[in-house]
Amino acid sequence: MAEAATAPAARASIGDSEFDRDTAVTRREPGVYDIDLSAGWTIFGAVNGGYLLAVLGRALADALPHPDPFTISAHYLTASRPGPAVIRTETVRTGRTLSTGQASLLQRDEAGNEVERIRVLASYGDLGTLPDDVRTTARPPAFPPLEHCIGPEDGPSPVDDTSPIAERLMLKLDPSTLGWALGAPSGKGEMRSWFGLADGRDADPLAMLLAVDALPPTAFEIGISGWVPTVELTVHVRHRPAPGPLRVSITTRNLAGGFLEEDAEVWDSEDRLVAQSRQLARVKRG
Amino acid sequence: MAEAATAPAARASIGDSEFDRDTAVTRREPGVYDIDLSAGWTIFGAVNGGYLLAVLGRALADALPHPDPFTISAHYLTASRPGPAVIRTETVRTGRTLSTGQASLLQRDEAGNEVERIRVLASYGDLGTLPDDVRTTARPPAFPPLEHCIGPEDGPSPVDDTSPIAERLMLKLDPSTLGWALGAPSGKGEMRSWFGLADGRDADPLAMLLAVDALPPTAFEIGISGWVPTVELTVHVRHRPAPGPLRVSITTRNLAGGFLEEDAEVWDSEDRLVAQSRQLARVKRG
Repeated sequence: MAEAATAPAARASIGDSEFDRDTAVTRREPGVYDIDLSAGWTIFGAVNGGYLLAVLGRALADALPHPDPFTISAHYLTASRPGPAVIRTETVRTGRTLSTGQASLLQRDEAGNEVERIRVLASYGDLGTLPDDVRTTARPPAFPPLEHCIGPEDGPSPVDDTSPIAERLMLKLDPSTLGWALGAPSGKGEMRSWFGLADGRDADPLAMLLAVDALPPTAFEIGISGWVPTVELTVHVRHRPAPGPLRVSITTRNLAGGFLEEDAEVWDSEDRLVAQSRQLARVKRG
Repeated sequence: MAEAATAPAARASIGDSEFDRDTAVTRREPGVYDIDLSAGWTIFGAVNGGYLLAVLGRALADALPHPDPFTISAHYLTASRPGPAVIRTETVRTGRTLSTGQASLLQRDEAGNEVERIRVLASYGDLGTLPDDVRTTARPPAFPPLEHCIGPEDGPSPVDDTSPIAERLMLKLDPSTLGWALGAPSGKGEMRSWFGLADGRDADPLAMLLAVDALPPTAFEIGISGWVPTVELTVHVRHRPAPGPLRVSITTRNLAGGFLEEDAEVWDSEDRLVAQSRQLARVKRG
């Protein structure tokens, strides 16, 4: 059932999918990468912050001796635009278990000057080498079955020209966190959704960097309608996700002074807590 | 009562205290600072990660146009030692509300080569300029009164030569998170403590960078006795704390694959959630 829901079209695979093509970076020289940021991952003209983090994550995976982002922190400096960008990486430290790197994504402004869009600091490891010991008290959040959740295609205007990213994601929101869409926000600061890629590609660590920033802002459920740009986003990838759709649960506990935090948990089809993230976002009244 | 408990000695003040003197940095040239890391903030010979973050935070507060760390992420690369260190900062971006900077702390090894200890990426602002709007659902954790909590001075050996930091902190742990000390860990991964500086200096944003990493590891309550070094620590400072002791509540929900997260909340005497932090730590069996 979930399979069918995630794969309306022919099923894409990790390495051969829209997400892989749109996050592919080309090594110009050691540590320096070129990419053409796709307009397909924008919403209201803004390039999604999770997509950008996945692009930087892919560059660091190539530059560092370890393949997987264990913890990656991004500070968003200026708004990225679809089109050419360069990623400059620096290997800060390499160790046996972990290596640490830094990356900056830059684009040229109208005058042709390089402007830094995002700076990232990350420690990478190899998820495949971790022991299986698990002593977790975390429990999966209560989620309605996927077929009882609501996606854009269930709405009046399934095709939304202003957010092409919606066509590339399989998002099915828990109706109990959709009050904002009906003019009755819960006030609780919670957002929950099933997550997948529309072409059926299964999630991997890089796709989870996208997943944690793909849902509507929790601020909507607090009754805030404006734009909520990310200042900083840190993601911990804890386990390689099992095939099948992910469950993403986001909570905001503290909106104060015009800023709020968004805590995300990502659970896989085997009920594993595979990623955790926290971002600091700024409330701009709409 | 709390006042008395926090100020056994003459009350020190912000700007004139042990913490201020031991985190003071000297500008060598624009963006470059010298410091002599104090042995007074070590435990078992290791310099406390929160003290180091406060040192880096002070250097960035001088280098950037904004005074307060709104979000600061540190990746710990190699173990710092008491003694001379240099901090090199870079101003990444300056804006009206926020500015972003980077800092590295380096020390010389036996051969005289510079070794990077920590790298930090942070966005600074001015807490004094934030609007007062608060829409929070967060509630203070349940804490026993300070006089019912337990500090090192209540133990059999109040003076512990191996952890001088204990003499500089006012830590009073919630007895319900002290099972590990009695050989009966709760298995819950929770640690709660009242926090202050022993000389009575009130907390400010820099002291909160210390507070989030000052408690015993939650891993102890999960039944792990080994060393739990921090890989990455991110702190969000949300409000300037009111005078008086802070309450620090730390939770670990997911220990898996040899890594765990520690989520800290810092509450002030006016029941405000003044800081939130999350760290990824590595479990090294003792």
